[in-house]
Amino acid sequence: MSQSTLEEADIVSSVSPEPQGHNADLRRIRSNPDYWYPVAWSHELKSGKTIGTRYAGQPIALVRPLDGSVFALEDRCAHRQVPLSLGRVSGEAVQCCYHGWAYGRSGRCIDVPYLGKNKLPNGVKTYPCREEGGLIFIFPGDPAKAETTPFPALGSVRDPAYKTRRFGKKVACHYSFMHENLMDMNHQFMHMKQMGQMKPRFLGGKDEPTLVEARYSFARTSGKQPWGEALIFGERRDASERYAHRDVMTIRTEYPYQTLRIATGDEPPVMDLWIVYVPQDAEEKTCRVFGLLSVRKPKVGVVLDMAWPFLVAFTERIFKEDRDIVELEQAAWNELGGDHNQEVFPVINTLRRLLARCGVPEEQDTTRPT
Amino acid sequence: MSQSTLEEADIVSSVSPEPQGHNADLRRIRSNPDYWYPVAWSHELKSGKTIGTRYAGQPIALVRPLDGSVFALEDRCAHRQVPLSLGRVSGEAVQCCYHGWAYGRSGRCIDVPYLGKNKLPNGVKTYPCREEGGLIFIFPGDPAKAETTPFPALGSVRDPAYKTRRFGKKVACHYSFMHENLMDMNHQFMHMKQMGQMKPRFLGGKDEPTLVEARYSFARTSGKQPWGEALIFGERRDASERYAHRDVMTIRTEYPYQTLRIATGDEPPVMDLWIVYVPQDAEEKTCRVFGLLSVRKPKVGVVLDMAWPFLVAFTERIFKEDRDIVELEQAAWNELGGDHNQEVFPVINTLRRLLARCGVPEEQDTTRPT
Amino acid sequence: MSQSTLEEADIVSSVSPEPQGHNADLRRIRSNPDYWYPVAWSHELKSGKTIGTRYAGQPIALVRPLDGSVFALEDRCAHRQVPLSLGRVSGEAVQCCYHGWAYGRSGRCIDVPYLGKNKLPNGVKTYPCREEGGLIFIFPGDPAKAETTPFPALGSVRDPAYKTRRFGKKVACHYSFMHENLMDMNHQFMHMKQMGQMKPRFLGGKDEPTLVEARYSFARTSGKQPWGEALIFGERRDASERYAHRDVMTIRTEYPYQTLRIATGDEPPVMDLWIVYVPQDAEEKTCRVFGLLSVRKPKVGVVLDMAWPFLVAFTERIFKEDRDIVELEQAAWNELGGDHNQEVFPVINTLRRLLARCGVPEEQDTTRPT
Repeated sequence: MSQSTLEEADIVSSVSPEPQGHNADLRRIRSNPDYWYPVAWSHELKSGKTIGTRYAGQPIALVRPLDGSVFALEDRCAHRQVPLSLGRVSGEAVQCCYHGWAYGRSGRCIDVPYLGKNKLPNGVKTYPCREEGGLIFIFPGDPAKAETTPFPALGSVRDPAYKTRRFGKKVACHYSFMHENLMDMNHQFMHMKQMGQMKPRFLGGKDEPTLVEARYSFARTSGKQPWGEALIFGERRDASERYAHRDVMTIRTEYPYQTLRIATGDEPPVMDLWIVYVPQDAEEKTCRVFGLLSVRKPKVGVVLDMAWPFLVAFTERIFKEDRDIVELEQAAWNELGGDHNQEVFPVINTLRRLLARCGVPEEQDTTRPT
Repeated sequence: MSQSTLEEADIVSSVSPEPQGHNADLRRIRSNPDYWYPVAWSHELKSGKTIGTRYAGQPIALVRPLDGSVFALEDRCAHRQVPLSLGRVSGEAVQCCYHGWAYGRSGRCIDVPYLGKNKLPNGVKTYPCREEGGLIFIFPGDPAKAETTPFPALGSVRDPAYKTRRFGKKVACHYSFMHENLMDMNHQFMHMKQMGQMKPRFLGGKDEPTLVEARYSFARTSGKQPWGEALIFGERRDASERYAHRDVMTIRTEYPYQTLRIATGDEPPVMDLWIVYVPQDAEEKTCRVFGLLSVRKPKVGVVLDMAWPFLVAFTERIFKEDRDIVELEQAAWNELGGDHNQEVFPVINTLRRLLARCGVPEEQDTTRPT
Repeated sequence: MSQSTLEEADIVSSVSPEPQGHNADLRRIRSNPDYWYPVAWSHELKSGKTIGTRYAGQPIALVRPLDGSVFALEDRCAHRQVPLSLGRVSGEAVQCCYHGWAYGRSGRCIDVPYLGKNKLPNGVKTYPCREEGGLIFIFPGDPAKAETTPFPALGSVRDPAYKTRRFGKKVACHYSFMHENLMDMNHQFMHMKQMGQMKPRFLGGKDEPTLVEARYSFARTSGKQPWGEALIFGERRDASERYAHRDVMTIRTEYPYQTLRIATGDEPPVMDLWIVYVPQDAEEKTCRVFGLLSVRKPKVGVVLDMAWPFLVAFTERIFKEDRDIVELEQAAWNELGGDHNQEVFPVINTLRRLLARCGVPEEQDTTRPT
């Protein structure tokens, strides 16, 4: 029995088998809006300013008054639908750039410069809004559920033992391709030029109602350990069995977020990634990545600071390869008009069922304009 | 009662109220083709040459023979539909660049170099064509109506007491957004950086079958008078009430044209603008602006000539702000799939009814290819 | 009786008349896939490499192993539909760049690095593939017909008495516009700047089930003979009748290929062009040209070598004029939503019938995804 089938046996024992036939095309499943989603980095929104952002085709104006917390409005003036994010912040209100209509934190229209106060028109939609870990989150779904919906843990971003890289770009694909990409470590093959030849071993996983987990170890089969990796894991001088399969990588989709942790034995993780893929357009064929990549500081912390630019460049190269391939997957989907994925790795089929189950089927999505 | 409600009272007395609910989306109303529309500047078409232009998706070849007036043909050779405007002018005819088919002023095919004269195929459509005030006009509608349809007055372009700036660009919006933009002087708010803070006062208007008028005066509430404005109105040394509300601005939509005049008392206008927004594409979501901005020459005329470059730069900055905002209005319309305008200014609702009444509803428009 | 009607009489005697009304729009007729089509130049595909190409919207990976002939696969991995042409050639197989799935010459999946050999999934489609005359051909239709379908003769590319220029670009039009352009030599009018004024005389043609032929002679009516032409035909010192109509140009569409030969009397042709227009997108509104332009070497062969760059520049200028005009024809078709061609030259109507008869009507084309 080959190594690869052993790996399969591992996974089959821990995750349920794939039923024949999906009911819906996974790439048509909309993200579930009843979760907290980041829509901007804190540093993008200066005090006394407003910026425009998006969630699944909905334009959102984020406003940071000189005093008080950030708030989020529908980014269309009630008058002529032009973006409020082009307007001026004045006190705790934002004034549309065109005719000066003003909106407060509640979305109510509080002034039209040429109209009596008793005749003010309706205002605009608001979104529950929170700022944590350098990210601005909104709750795009039913506002009544915002308070009781758990806020994500954001990895190790608040732990001073870690240094965190904030990264992310827009990627022209459905968010599900991103989840599949990260969880299927057999795609290590694609990063061979960056990482050398690594053989992943699947160690098992978990299948829970809103969580799928996959655990892997790795053995270097040829090539040298790259700089970037040595920075994170410490140097392994050779590819001998002595070091192989020592570190365990745990990847989780805890809907709608994803995490990746690398740890040796019971030690705290050397790397802790929290990442989410936020749909941009109404069809959710583009997403914006918000990633928090936390690396455990070594004893001599300055080493990590000095090496940081190399680590940034290394992760950018990896991320570019991933972005290119998932965009090609989306392009093939567009051309074929549907999902022709022929998945053979059980944990990915488990993940696909999770994403389909937790998301919103196209036909049931009544929250968007038709 | 506040100032703004007083203004409203003024307008309510002069224009009729807005009925509940439109029957058609204003942005789907096509421009009425039974009017004279400019399609090019005279200087664009050299003698013995031909150029291509557009009206609402219809390609038009303008031809200026060495002798005789400009004429206008459908810009598609009857043979293979390539643009005649790429051809050669030969006498009073234009010859298609591909196989040399030739068409005269009447649109008739008068020569195919490799065919007997008795076998000549059908020709192409023509448009009534006139050249006035540095503009080339066509009559895109029923040619039988061309003669009896009044030709527009073109402001003060022919009056030697004025110097005229010809300007215009393509703007990616339905022409109705342009009419609304100019007539609602509350959008002065948007030009604050260029003009300083100005408070408009609505003085009343007119509501006639093919005309809507709005009159305003202004008071500077802060900031200095800009250069460009001083050139047109003469310098007002301070923002005191002494100068406030002295000049009257009269804006008219006289379908399908628009004018804006600024005058003090019974004196001739210091500024006289004639402007029209000519649909370019078949869906009329892009228009080309043709504007004639006439400024009354001061006693020492050379002052205006010297200041002209500054006036050009000033008006370009204003026009850019207007263009950006109306294109955002169109973009919002595209995204929402319809008009969500929530108008509170009665004269604009009056204008909207005029444009809807005088234009051609989408479903009745049988003149365009389906 | 004029010259042009004489020419018509000639053609009427040799080709059948145009029946009233086509059943289908020629620009909606798909190319018949049961022929050999080139999809790449040999020099584009290095040994041990793979490249991606297209036939009518079908992505094709061409693979050149270090040993053995080129083969052609569907350019989508069976797993996640990403291009195999981005993968690595390993022995006689190509390995997908993403997760390393490997495919052999037969299209069968022969390895998934993390799966047992007894569980390998289905592979991908293959195309019969041949390499001749510096071109890589595939047979996109029914593979059972590949062996018995005649392979094209490729003009004089293999004859050492000729020097051949390989040329071609993508052109944004249906292939039928290209056939019509080349066969209707009345379009000489368009190349007047490059060639001077030339009067074509139609000498007759042929109308066979899969072939249409047109023969022409030419007389220079004004202007000087251009360099490029003199290189091909030899210098004609004046435009006198002595040289007029001496050379005969024979243009054939022998479905789906086209040829153009110029010869004087019974001598071998001075120029022999073989050309084909391969549809790129699924709607066949873009084609890629593959042309083999063979010029007979003069007694002192080095003259042709020295003059070659001038000949290349001359033919590029001609080809650019042709490309621009056929793209305008396609643009007019797109705008009008159909073919409004009003053809008066009988041989072109004969050609149109041939292309319609040999191609595949849109509705019968069941081989493409809907």
